[in-house]
Amino acid sequence: MSDPRPEAAVTSLESVPGLLLSRRSILRAGAVTGTGLVATALAACAPAAAGPNWTYRPEASSPVAAAPTSPSDDHAGHSATPTSAPAASASASPVDHDAAALAVVKRFLDGEGATLEGAGNQPIRPRLEGGAKVFEMTIDAIKHRIDAAKDPIDALGYNGTWPAPRIEVTEGDTVRAVFKNNLAESTGVHFHGQRLPNNMDGVPHITQDPIEPGDSFTYEFVARTPGSHMYHSHHNATDQVGRGLLGAFIVQPKDPADRYDRKYGVSQDIVWISNDSLGGFTINGRGFPATSPILAYVGETIAIRFMNEGSMMHPWHLHGMPMKVVARDGYPLPAPFLCDTLGVNPGERWDVIIDCADPGAWAFHCHILPHAEGHDGMFGMVTALVIQDPATAAATLASADQPTDPIRSAALAGGSTSFLCRVPGTVG
Amino acid sequence: MSDPRPEAAVTSLESVPGLLLSRRSILRAGAVTGTGLVATALAACAPAAAGPNWTYRPEASSPVAAAPTSPSDDHAGHSATPTSAPAASASASPVDHDAAALAVVKRFLDGEGATLEGAGNQPIRPRLEGGAKVFEMTIDAIKHRIDAAKDPIDALGYNGTWPAPRIEVTEGDTVRAVFKNNLAESTGVHFHGQRLPNNMDGVPHITQDPIEPGDSFTYEFVARTPGSHMYHSHHNATDQVGRGLLGAFIVQPKDPADRYDRKYGVSQDIVWISNDSLGGFTINGRGFPATSPILAYVGETIAIRFMNEGSMMHPWHLHGMPMKVVARDGYPLPAPFLCDTLGVNPGERWDVIIDCADPGAWAFHCHILPHAEGHDGMFGMVTALVIQDPATAAATLASADQPTDPIRSAALAGGSTSFLCRVPGTVG
Amino acid sequence: MSDPRPEAAVTSLESVPGLLLSRRSILRAGAVTGTGLVATALAACAPAAAGPNWTYRPEASSPVAAAPTSPSDDHAGHSATPTSAPAASASASPVDHDAAALAVVKRFLDGEGATLEGAGNQPIRPRLEGGAKVFEMTIDAIKHRIDAAKDPIDALGYNGTWPAPRIEVTEGDTVRAVFKNNLAESTGVHFHGQRLPNNMDGVPHITQDPIEPGDSFTYEFVARTPGSHMYHSHHNATDQVGRGLLGAFIVQPKDPADRYDRKYGVSQDIVWISNDSLGGFTINGRGFPATSPILAYVGETIAIRFMNEGSMMHPWHLHGMPMKVVARDGYPLPAPFLCDTLGVNPGERWDVIIDCADPGAWAFHCHILPHAEGHDGMFGMVTALVIQDPATAAATLASADQPTDPIRSAALAGGSTSFLCRVPGTVG
Repeated sequence: MSDPRPEAAVTSLESVPGLLLSRRSILRAGAVTGTGLVATALAACAPAAAGPNWTYRPEASSPVAAAPTSPSDDHAGHSATPTSAPAASASASPVDHDAAALAVVKRFLDGEGATLEGAGNQPIRPRLEGGAKVFEMTIDAIKHRIDAAKDPIDALGYNGTWPAPRIEVTEGDTVRAVFKNNLAESTGVHFHGQRLPNNMDGVPHITQDPIEPGDSFTYEFVARTPGSHMYHSHHNATDQVGRGLLGAFIVQPKDPADRYDRKYGVSQDIVWISNDSLGGFTINGRGFPATSPILAYVGETIAIRFMNEGSMMHPWHLHGMPMKVVARDGYPLPAPFLCDTLGVNPGERWDVIIDCADPGAWAFHCHILPHAEGHDGMFGMVTALVIQDPATAAATLASADQPTDPIRSAALAGGSTSFLCRVPGTVG
Repeated sequence: MSDPRPEAAVTSLESVPGLLLSRRSILRAGAVTGTGLVATALAACAPAAAGPNWTYRPEASSPVAAAPTSPSDDHAGHSATPTSAPAASASASPVDHDAAALAVVKRFLDGEGATLEGAGNQPIRPRLEGGAKVFEMTIDAIKHRIDAAKDPIDALGYNGTWPAPRIEVTEGDTVRAVFKNNLAESTGVHFHGQRLPNNMDGVPHITQDPIEPGDSFTYEFVARTPGSHMYHSHHNATDQVGRGLLGAFIVQPKDPADRYDRKYGVSQDIVWISNDSLGGFTINGRGFPATSPILAYVGETIAIRFMNEGSMMHPWHLHGMPMKVVARDGYPLPAPFLCDTLGVNPGERWDVIIDCADPGAWAFHCHILPHAEGHDGMFGMVTALVIQDPATAAATLASADQPTDPIRSAALAGGSTSFLCRVPGTVG
Repeated sequence: MSDPRPEAAVTSLESVPGLLLSRRSILRAGAVTGTGLVATALAACAPAAAGPNWTYRPEASSPVAAAPTSPSDDHAGHSATPTSAPAASASASPVDHDAAALAVVKRFLDGEGATLEGAGNQPIRPRLEGGAKVFEMTIDAIKHRIDAAKDPIDALGYNGTWPAPRIEVTEGDTVRAVFKNNLAESTGVHFHGQRLPNNMDGVPHITQDPIEPGDSFTYEFVARTPGSHMYHSHHNATDQVGRGLLGAFIVQPKDPADRYDRKYGVSQDIVWISNDSLGGFTINGRGFPATSPILAYVGETIAIRFMNEGSMMHPWHLHGMPMKVVARDGYPLPAPFLCDTLGVNPGERWDVIIDCADPGAWAFHCHILPHAEGHDGMFGMVTALVIQDPATAAATLASADQPTDPIRSAALAGGSTSFLCRVPGTVG
């Protein structure tokens, strides 16, 4: 199997080829239409009422692998003790909660996010004009889906998406970004974190007139500050940013040695923009279960660039491995530190490096719990970092009813997430 | 007097012997039943309408000790100026506020927290089984008191307490934690901050099935990440953690030189878990005035491990001495720093070291003021760090009507907090 | 022109002489009385419907200065394309928003803050008595204006202002602060961040009796901890601090080499106290448009000391140049870092250094957008850092109908902010 690490320094989840993912026929049945199908799917891949098994065996290399036999019966951890059933059971709500919680997880596992149109945060290629990189942008009223079960909301988007296309340039590039306002209201665009000439700073009535309906405005500047930055509305901004006028602006350092692929051996460089206003609690424009999982192999090193475009602080918690925090607002930290929960305030950007050492599906969510879980299960600011052992993934692939083209994009498009499905015969 | 520093690296407030505390008969009258008793108690130890005096005299070693005579009259600071009484006095509310504020402080001084049953955050001893440290836990519906004046709330607890028993192991230990679900609802347990095998990560529907009512689940893993961690529900978690399914999981470093007693000379290592959901604003499961004060001698060095199990950031402010921040989420900081106010986001843990240099009762509270004080006085996220001079404490003890066994636990149990009571004849 | 950098280490915006600001007659028309005058004023300095031009030309030294001609027509950036007017225009609200947003910006540009009585955060000079620096303070019910358009609110103030007078002493000074309570309610004063003798710590019922109506209390202590600190009520504090009983307490280091003027070459040292309670979202007691802009020359280095006296975290975002964060709660950081957005939690103080390298009017605001902008335009926690090129400012001044005494204080008093007005004939 070829090295899954691409050369590109900033590559999104969607553009990295080569990750093998098991993909079972039950998940090719198409869109989830209800809990009936979910139940069928689970039953198909589960031999019993057991908990999830994994196609890889993280416990195989664990020093406690052989241990958990005494208290459990037929599967890891669980031990049914029917003789001590709880007294209170009149309320049906716990069961209701579990069914609802399972249904929403199943939608995530079925790759709901990949089925939705209008994915945001996609790279945009500039047109070269003289020495400038020219980005042509429209500002539009759009319909945007937070997840598949909710009606589309009346949102705003640059080039029709929330988040906007991800702009990536190199330090020293001349950037010309032409914004055509197709809205019925005025606006202005601020490149948050960049050092622009003041008359390009994008604050209506202070540095420019508002961009009125039908008008265009050209922002032209040299990208001076490397790192993780943003662009968003700076006019009626609580409303306009809250409705989706936000995007990532990445400036790669001029010296290739300072880029994350060279500096940290990063193979995936992921932008993670959160918002919490008119579309609820979102990561890159989607709420769980329509958020995209992050897929990686054991041994990969990935970067995540947290960007907060909302109005609340969000403490991002990665289960399992720690995050090494290396930059803040684009500026390298003089003393990088490790943590597993990182509060990101509105307007801040924090870059972290993760060594994907431990296989498994690791929950990755805002630890303000009401931003992540309610009485009907998880929602909002939840996703997962899924780390697979390459050999196990390949073996699973060979033995399963899968397409032979295991590229990650196809897997995602078809509902890649059967990696979480229990495989008969494996031990949890 | 013997050295009050115990050998144990992690010792709670309740288990440290040897601290002398004055304890007057008025405080042995038992539970506070109303403001009447409070007034009586205050009157008994106050010669006049003066402010509190102290049994120790922090100002004796102060370069300004002799100074505050000119503007004050008979006691430190205060100067009654009846000729300039304020015009507005029709409203009775300020008086009402003061009486209510005093009454609640008095309850704190009387050691209300020590009188309540069901103290949480107590150490639990494992059963050794083969090479594993086995912790037997139940998950129960409980009644829990936030303070003595409030009706008990319908809460949840591991082994019946909020916070749960404090688990302490050593890096490299094999941990087996068996959770028996006695609730009428499903649950799952996540060891937040630890690197577990994925199938022990505790996220129902993702890494395991929910632990249904009556069932048990065994989590077994090697404690890999030293430092301050937590365990809590990861199922319907806004609700279940909000109602008390939360506890501390401390992993002592394998190398004794890295433990806080050796590394920083710490004699008390205190876990401080906050929550702000269904039980209001709490520290270790209690709200002021039922929170526990931290008691120390001048010259002691203590550690506090802040853990936020709530849904809001809380900036903890210690009056007087600064805190040296040495670790975040269990990971030592590369550049420890000093501060007096430390914001802790949900899910984060921060370890601080405090040199107890200055004697006195130092308020220690969340600096989001509406989490700490209202129109009826202080409440919620407030406690105090009380630092005594050993010699003064001993002298006070000898001259007072006290039991001769001055261990801290007894002092606490009996209402240790008369240290704040004015002693006739001393100068404020 | 003389060097604008004063000798004083801590100097407020109001006290720095020598900054030239253009000031046009339209702004001397007096108080803004409505949008009619605003429109007139704008028309007077704008040759067309163009965006703002600047009296200095930040783009002149920019490598992209000559570039933005192709997509724009008569002024920087803008390109009217009437043939592609948006379809939807039935709603009048966008126009309403823009008019309201412009009107409020115009009030800011007209220097509304300087026209209001009762400016807070002003330096107070001590009386020397023996070896002590004596500060005489009253605690009063006051009327306070958040901005000119709002009715005065019933507030509280030390010496009649919100924030209180700014106290500045030197490490090792003996401080005697006498507080006379003229309120109809009790209070207590806490010097937040200082290490005082415990009986001067200011927590009623814990370290002192409340200061009752008509009484005085004298706080006397040696200023031990250098840096940025605060003093505020610690009695019914949610209410009393929320209504204005708060101020800055700056302790200059004993060693002059550690002061910001010597250590970082700082010429302006600015205290920035925020509150978010009973007066809304404020900076130094005012909400936009009555907040004070920060005025500097290109090449100046300034310090800002953020102090949060509110109950919410505020992430302060400076457009353009980064902030170098050098101290936290008065303690120098071991690893200063750069950022452009800095979250400040309640009770925290953070000191930042800004190299004023880029000319222009740089927005400076809380990035929790609902604290800064609403459907009627910007409000609350917004101001600007205005950086002028000295030569350009002088030339502008010479050619304009201005008073010849260009000191900053006069400029401010008269409405200094015509720097944002478009000058006919200049290119944006």
